[in-house]
Amino acid sequence: MQSYAVIGSGALGALYGAMLARGGHDVHFLLRSDFDHVKASGWRIDSHWGSFTLPANHPHVHVYQQAKDIPACDVTIVGLKTTENARMASLLVSSTSGGGRVLVLQNGLGIESACVDVVGADRVMTGCCFLCSNKVGPGHIDHLDQGKIAMGRFSAPLDQVADQTINELSHAGIETKGSDDMLTVRWRKLLWNIPFNGLSVVLNASTSEIMACPSTVDLARRIIDEVADAAIASGRKILPQWRSQTIDVTYKMVPYDSSMRLDYRFGRPLEIEAIFNEPIRQGEKFGQPMPTVRAIRDQLVYRDTERMRT
Amino acid sequence: MQSYAVIGSGALGALYGAMLARGGHDVHFLLRSDFDHVKASGWRIDSHWGSFTLPANHPHVHVYQQAKDIPACDVTIVGLKTTENARMASLLVSSTSGGGRVLVLQNGLGIESACVDVVGADRVMTGCCFLCSNKVGPGHIDHLDQGKIAMGRFSAPLDQVADQTINELSHAGIETKGSDDMLTVRWRKLLWNIPFNGLSVVLNASTSEIMACPSTVDLARRIIDEVADAAIASGRKILPQWRSQTIDVTYKMVPYDSSMRLDYRFGRPLEIEAIFNEPIRQGEKFGQPMPTVRAIRDQLVYRDTERMRT
Repeated sequence: MQSYAVIGSGALGALYGAMLARGGHDVHFLLRSDFDHVKASGWRIDSHWGSFTLPANHPHVHVYQQAKDIPACDVTIVGLKTTENARMASLLVSSTSGGGRVLVLQNGLGIESACVDVVGADRVMTGCCFLCSNKVGPGHIDHLDQGKIAMGRFSAPLDQVADQTINELSHAGIETKGSDDMLTVRWRKLLWNIPFNGLSVVLNASTSEIMACPSTVDLARRIIDEVADAAIASGRKILPQWRSQTIDVTYKMVPYDSSMRLDYRFGRPLEIEAIFNEPIRQGEKFGQPMPTVRAIRDQLVYRDTERMRT
Repeated sequence: MQSYAVIGSGALGALYGAMLARGGHDVHFLLRSDFDHVKASGWRIDSHWGSFTLPANHPHVHVYQQAKDIPACDVTIVGLKTTENARMASLLVSSTSGGGRVLVLQNGLGIESACVDVVGADRVMTGCCFLCSNKVGPGHIDHLDQGKIAMGRFSAPLDQVADQTINELSHAGIETKGSDDMLTVRWRKLLWNIPFNGLSVVLNASTSEIMACPSTVDLARRIIDEVADAAIASGRKILPQWRSQTIDVTYKMVPYDSSMRLDYRFGRPLEIEAIFNEPIRQGEKFGQPMPTVRAIRDQLVYRDTERMRT
């Protein structure tokens, strides 16, 4: 049974970490604002998979205010926003000191490089989460919908440690699937993230508001086409039906604020680099400029600087 | 000395109409919400060209609540929003009943057709105003910056009536220039209107806020390029320096809310058809799709339906 560290214990890291702790794994959470609350009162997880609490004295829950105090773990889950990736070296140094793996569960493209720089490509596993989850209070996560993880290694086929991690996550109740082509999985996720993170912030709209207006649905379709075409140009195999499926799932989705809209509303920096700039660069590199995506990107930069103006 | 009717006595129509009345022309204003105020107290014009008032009993100021009561005039100035063009027949029928001309001072492309349908192409003159002016209260106009008119006939060279109108506007203090290629003038104005009307509403930003963010300036430049390329494809002669000049004048402009942003803020319908849809159609017709402009257009439609939702 592997031990886990969770760097970035927000809506994603806390949910998966708490499920692993409930399943009997030692889980070491790095916490900032929630430290005192979780130390005193533990975790409260409301989840469509089944709600539960972990008391403060739960034998497998360990909390830290500083990354250097986390012991060496078998797997360090990175659930941090990519806007903090510049801090990765100091955040990982202690929990990965025993030679353990890193599992990067961040949105976007090219986001593994911060971890690769610290522990080397061989020790980096990478995952995409399809998850509607919010932190609604100190130590309190509301997991609304979906939740599954697709994961693999960064630049190598699945191996024994990756398989074990997939099994342990699955046993903990997290639907997890292995993949030897995580780059395609990441592009597929961008089919959703680029239009709906982008438009939800630019227009200050929920996904259901975007889907209620035929013009913005049509705009989302054109964005999805640009992203899919760039992915294909870069060598990924994007199935034709993924384009319309991305729209269809959004119609059916529970009303939800995208992660970027939540960041915007709470005055946090936007993940423009990982979700927009790197895909745009890849598109340009492979001869697929993305004019619509670039327009949304520039509008997001305006929104991001707006935050700094006020 | 020609007599004038003003249909749409807002920031534009009231300014020019009041200047003509001051200059000795009989001017017949169609008014809605401002009727009682102007009837009782006249016009107050604050203008960077020189402020003035016209008392209620001014011999050349005539006000009406219903278009059918306006007498036949030599020139009917249409300063109405294009979103009201469906009403044109009933608005023009009386003031043009003597065979007079119409001077359409509306934004956008293809906007003359509503008037052409009523009085025929030969009697339609068309003008573009470069004007920063707001209605700030009942009968009270604040003319902040610029103000000149470029005008010509809709589908024929300038003639004696057009020249006389240009002279009379000029003598009234309105800098007016004749043009035999108003279509090019309209496209040139769209170089500004499409990026800055569009972005100011989508981002809820003033022109100075847009110009303070390098990303939105870059986006505006790409929009200007799409509009200029569509204009060239449709046969217009767009001078290369107009592209950068459009950006440069906006840097120097007094802080100003675009007409579309004012419409948005006051809950009025947006002129999407005239300023966006018709130019996009022209671009498509001549093989120049405008992906960035289409993205802004779709976002504006969202903003426009937002108004109807609340």
